[in-house]
Amino acid sequence: MADSPEPSPSDPNEQIMRATYRALREHGYADLTMKRIAEEYGKSTAAIHYHYDTKDELLAAFLDYLLDRFRETVHEVETTDPEHRLELLLDKLLVEPEDHRDLLIAMLEMRSQAPYKDTFSERFQQNDEYVRYMLTTVIDHGITEDVFTDINAEHVSRALMTIVDGARTREVVLDDPDALATARRTADEYVTAVLLGDE
Amino acid sequence: MADSPEPSPSDPNEQIMRATYRALREHGYADLTMKRIAEEYGKSTAAIHYHYDTKDELLAAFLDYLLDRFRETVHEVETTDPEHRLELLLDKLLVEPEDHRDLLIAMLEMRSQAPYKDTFSERFQQNDEYVRYMLTTVIDHGITEDVFTDINAEHVSRALMTIVDGARTREVVLDDPDALATARRTADEYVTAVLLGDE
Repeated sequence: MADSPEPSPSDPNEQIMRATYRALREHGYADLTMKRIAEEYGKSTAAIHYHYDTKDELLAAFLDYLLDRFRETVHEVETTDPEHRLELLLDKLLVEPEDHRDLLIAMLEMRSQAPYKDTFSERFQQNDEYVRYMLTTVIDHGITEDVFTDINAEHVSRALMTIVDGARTREVVLDDPDALATARRTADEYVTAVLLGDE
Repeated sequence: MADSPEPSPSDPNEQIMRATYRALREHGYADLTMKRIAEEYGKSTAAIHYHYDTKDELLAAFLDYLLDRFRETVHEVETTDPEHRLELLLDKLLVEPEDHRDLLIAMLEMRSQAPYKDTFSERFQQNDEYVRYMLTTVIDHGITEDVFTDINAEHVSRALMTIVDGARTREVVLDDPDALATARRTADEYVTAVLLGDE
């Protein structure tokens, strides 16, 4: 999802986002309150309400924050070699630090509320579109360069994101510490078969 | 997960399970109450409490009920030809009637609560083990019969379940009506590559 926030934030919004991050990891989504976020923030709830009217509004901003952070880590992928670039993107999506299980748990709770909350639903769709766009672009590039088989890049991106979302769900629901590693291997096998297959 | 329950139940437990099913689909997990289940049941909440002390106890029984129903549908797969049998199992897992979105939504809410509720967590793990056992068995059978490539059947089962769980999550979170169809195609491509690949 995103790397662990580092210390020494300066602007209040960044501080609130980090406080939300810590509160979500500690209490989960269902037990999250403005009061608990304020405790992590080290200020009053009024200080948070000054920026955000409701908890859902704050959480929508938090999802934007995570998406921004994810975009930053993706921009660190500097190679333009299609095969290598696709590998690194899949690493970003499927190789996460171990201590992110708490965040994955809170994220799945929020995901499960998407059908009831448009502000969440919009963010998850936007995030998915962004990542699929990144994947589709590198696959199309590889097809143009003749290193990948000429196949429907949009479908392959959806297939890879299905594997990614399956892994995230399984790590949380089944408490399976190998879920991401299994998915990484599956994604490799899939990519080798459909994009590098010698037909 | 399971087929839509048919009318004319006889024993009270079956009636309560069907009432739970309808209440879950109508209200979702977060807004589910014993009162709402009782309304669907057509009796008092006391009549339900006679069988189940708490809502979580009732929902644990409901997960068992769904698992039983799923096992029944799997037993309908009568062919022993490995390739055909694997296809039919994947159909059971990934081709569901359209009107099951409401149930998928409620199921994802319950899945997201697995880290907090052992009674849920146990059922989801048990369900996953059962389905993986079915998949591993047919894959191993195909390997013995020399129709499948000799590969780690346990890994392939986990890979396929990652695709299944990804599809269920994506259908709910992204409101993607094609999520299951995309996953069905992905599973086919994966099976063709790793089990039927000519290496």
